[in-house]
Amino acid sequence: MTAPAHFGDRLSAAVAQRESQIVLGLDPDPAKLWPGAGAAAAPEAVLAHCRAVIDAVAPACVAVKPQLACFERLGPDGWRVLHAVCDHARDASLLVLADGKRGDVPVTGRVYGEALVGVLRADAFTVNPLLGRDALQPFVEAGRAAGAGPFVLVRTSNPGAADLMDLELATGEPLWERLAAMVAGAGAPGASGLSDVGAVTGATVPAHLDRMRELMPRTPFLLPGVGAQGGDVAALGPAFAPGRAGGLVTASRSIVNAHSEGGGAPGEAARREAERLRELAWSLA
Amino acid sequence: MTAPAHFGDRLSAAVAQRESQIVLGLDPDPAKLWPGAGAAAAPEAVLAHCRAVIDAVAPACVAVKPQLACFERLGPDGWRVLHAVCDHARDASLLVLADGKRGDVPVTGRVYGEALVGVLRADAFTVNPLLGRDALQPFVEAGRAAGAGPFVLVRTSNPGAADLMDLELATGEPLWERLAAMVAGAGAPGASGLSDVGAVTGATVPAHLDRMRELMPRTPFLLPGVGAQGGDVAALGPAFAPGRAGGLVTASRSIVNAHSEGGGAPGEAARREAERLRELAWSLA
Repeated sequence: MTAPAHFGDRLSAAVAQRESQIVLGLDPDPAKLWPGAGAAAAPEAVLAHCRAVIDAVAPACVAVKPQLACFERLGPDGWRVLHAVCDHARDASLLVLADGKRGDVPVTGRVYGEALVGVLRADAFTVNPLLGRDALQPFVEAGRAAGAGPFVLVRTSNPGAADLMDLELATGEPLWERLAAMVAGAGAPGASGLSDVGAVTGATVPAHLDRMRELMPRTPFLLPGVGAQGGDVAALGPAFAPGRAGGLVTASRSIVNAHSEGGGAPGEAARREAERLRELAWSLA
Repeated sequence: MTAPAHFGDRLSAAVAQRESQIVLGLDPDPAKLWPGAGAAAAPEAVLAHCRAVIDAVAPACVAVKPQLACFERLGPDGWRVLHAVCDHARDASLLVLADGKRGDVPVTGRVYGEALVGVLRADAFTVNPLLGRDALQPFVEAGRAAGAGPFVLVRTSNPGAADLMDLELATGEPLWERLAAMVAGAGAPGASGLSDVGAVTGATVPAHLDRMRELMPRTPFLLPGVGAQGGDVAALGPAFAPGRAGGLVTASRSIVNAHSEGGGAPGEAARREAERLRELAWSLA
């Protein structure tokens, strides 16, 4: 595959090629790994686990989303394992979406951009926009230079998200609408029609999705909260308005721990659940 | 020193013992290290540099603040070097304030808490509050269990901070005042009178400091922006109202690169600049 230089185009091509909008979340907990392994060798056990999960479910997915916290918890070996997991995902032809929700002053944002895109070679990465437009810009630029893309938090799926993101501004709209406008303004569409700056849009509040799509008509949405966090994939229709790549459906525990619900070998159960989600999401667009 | 279990008390004791409120920011750039070293061996060069800087300026400081982005940029060896730098700082009797501005949904916040406090053994760490109270809580709890403390972003020092943090809410106050109230509510004071949850309060807007102190009377303030970012240490008076440990003055480039301003050996120049800042801040309280 020749990789178009625009993130929205790359994402559209990858979703079409793999016939999947499913993003496999990797949140490895050393206490809950399969194939089971002792905590004494936690970093190696986590690496083996992540490789096994990727091998099992890659055919149903378009990307993996390693949760950086889970690798940092491994200590000095954490980032070595993270790099190795990302390499393994690329070998399986999956995009890598580094989930770190980074955000800092511009000079540091440039360093995060180097770390995530230049060194880790992530295709996409999550960003926290609290520090404003000048702080978001280095992430956008780092992505753009490499055909990678930031996914910016607009509304997250935890109950406490309402504390700040739903606050009503003096101008009448909730804060998350201001975040949405910032995201829409930061991105530029490619030939596919999809923007090169995405948004994290919590699927636990599907009522917001229509309005989000209105404010960000060309933005790829990263939809967390499906499965273990309580989201409902069938409620995600508006996300796919600009095309199937307009909505990426993330699931981690519901896939990785599928065997504890339905029984069977962990790999087989995970593959079945990922394929079930893939078919469901694909049928919505 | 017996370490009290309350972060505010630990911080007060450390500031009193070292007669310093200076936090040395470590933002190593492989292209600008002393003693100079090639990028081919960047991780080892960064480690040698950070150790040399700590050795030079530790006597004037109470803590180091490694910028996690700068270690993640080093690739798979990044967190190994970060752990080694933190070990070296502890050997020099400095507190470690891990500057990663983390923030995520509660289940992931607990993992970051483990990573930062349990594994990296940070005494303090910066947190992004955008995801709300339930997302802040795991950071507060992780700190409290270890006598460590979160410093929560309330108002940062970059120009774009005004985009969101200064937005006027329907209730009349700017968003940062809501963040300040969240921080004040999350903390609990110790015997020293200082709270165990801190705030990042950008020193480039000193006019806000009086109001911040009013909203967060017992909160330790982390004051970035001094030196290279344009802040003025003499304007920080209100920060010290609850005692000298109420205001931690961070400086990184202005200390580490002091030799490029005033000449001399890098270590000597850095030590002189750190000592100058230490005396100035100490004289304000």
